[in-house]
Amino acid sequence: MNDILERLTAVIESRKLSNGGDPEKSYVSKLFAKGDDAILKKVGEEATETVMAAKDVRNNMPASKLVYECADLWFHSMVMLAQYGLTADDVLKELARREGLSGIEEKASRKQS
Amino acid sequence: MNDILERLTAVIESRKLSNGGDPEKSYVSKLFAKGDDAILKKVGEEATETVMAAKDVRNNMPASKLVYECADLWFHSMVMLAQYGLTADDVLKELARREGLSGIEEKASRKQS
Amino acid sequence: MNDILERLTAVIESRKLSNGGDPEKSYVSKLFAKGDDAILKKVGEEATETVMAAKDVRNNMPASKLVYECADLWFHSMVMLAQYGLTADDVLKELARREGLSGIEEKASRKQS
Amino acid sequence: MNDILERLTAVIESRKLSNGGDPEKSYVSKLFAKGDDAILKKVGEEATETVMAAKDVRNNMPASKLVYECADLWFHSMVMLAQYGLTADDVLKELARREGLSGIEEKASRKQS
Repeated sequence: MNDILERLTAVIESRKLSNGGDPEKSYVSKLFAKGDDAILKKVGEEATETVMAAKDVRNNMPASKLVYECADLWFHSMVMLAQYGLTADDVLKELARREGLSGIEEKASRKQS
Repeated sequence: MNDILERLTAVIESRKLSNGGDPEKSYVSKLFAKGDDAILKKVGEEATETVMAAKDVRNNMPASKLVYECADLWFHSMVMLAQYGLTADDVLKELARREGLSGIEEKASRKQS
Repeated sequence: MNDILERLTAVIESRKLSNGGDPEKSYVSKLFAKGDDAILKKVGEEATETVMAAKDVRNNMPASKLVYECADLWFHSMVMLAQYGLTADDVLKELARREGLSGIEEKASRKQS
Repeated sequence: MNDILERLTAVIESRKLSNGGDPEKSYVSKLFAKGDDAILKKVGEEATETVMAAKDVRNNMPASKLVYECADLWFHSMVMLAQYGLTADDVLKELARREGLSGIEEKASRKQS
């Protein structure tokens, strides 16, 4: 797995309450303390912000804004994955599996119908 | 950058109409042909499906369903990034920057307010 | 309840398969035939389109675009309510209850925390 | 227009800063003070919460939860409409127009393609 995704996975894992994470000190631990819905709500929220940022970039805001919001979306996706006992590596393997088996596009295409 | 993300970036890039992508043959080329709004709509749609899948997993559906939807979300994020001249590598660099500079959590925390 | 919301409620109700709705002829019957997830996905999708339309209106698209997307959002919300045995009237009563009991804003404010 | 929607429209209008709304005292005034993106973010957030509530209702939570979240979604839609100089009445008129002209379903159906 990618270095930064691997490091983030380790940081997020260490923030779980069962691993000693402290909701008073850590934003991620606080999310874990709030549970599923708080985390899922963040994923939805960051997706909305990503879409808004893309619209802004098309209207002359710097592209960095979209990178920033997409990073937030992926980061909160990783917190969600951790909440469900999964990691970014599982997602990367699924992406690799699709590419290997039948082409990412056929997969996406089947999905589309 | 991670191997699979790098390979997907190359595949997506090759699907741009300006690189010879054919909307009749390729799902991604078709998205590029439709433009910004069709792509952003997919990002919002996949985020909703990710949230629904997480709810299902909590109600005894297999965890693979969440991995699958999150893979769709990340894949369509990458198509969006490409549409705006960006790549997954930009997102990974932003995540690394946050971790390096001030801790991913301080960043997320500032964001939260 | 408002006339148009009442009429739409009746139309949507008549499209349920148990009331003789035909998925071959009716878009709403088709949604009912697909079930929960297809309907919820539409709600998420229309919310994303509403947000995109608002951005477009701020960048000189006609305001009618936002009205149009918000109408889609409310309409698909009503299909969702029907799928769960609820109606727009239940939502209006909840809004009236908040206003009557404690002020809509205190409600929203409590929610916000 | 429906009574409660009309009353809410008036309340929301009175919360605009230009009408003397005070962000220190009113949740809606505070949203208006924050501007477009804060309001649009709420619409996306409430849509996500509506979808999550629907999933919960299917898993034995009371239906009132879905009514509650849908009320939040419609309420914040109305704040958004006000931010853009529009009202719920515009949305109801659009819904009535579709029903009158060509059937709400043909409209939705055209949309779907």
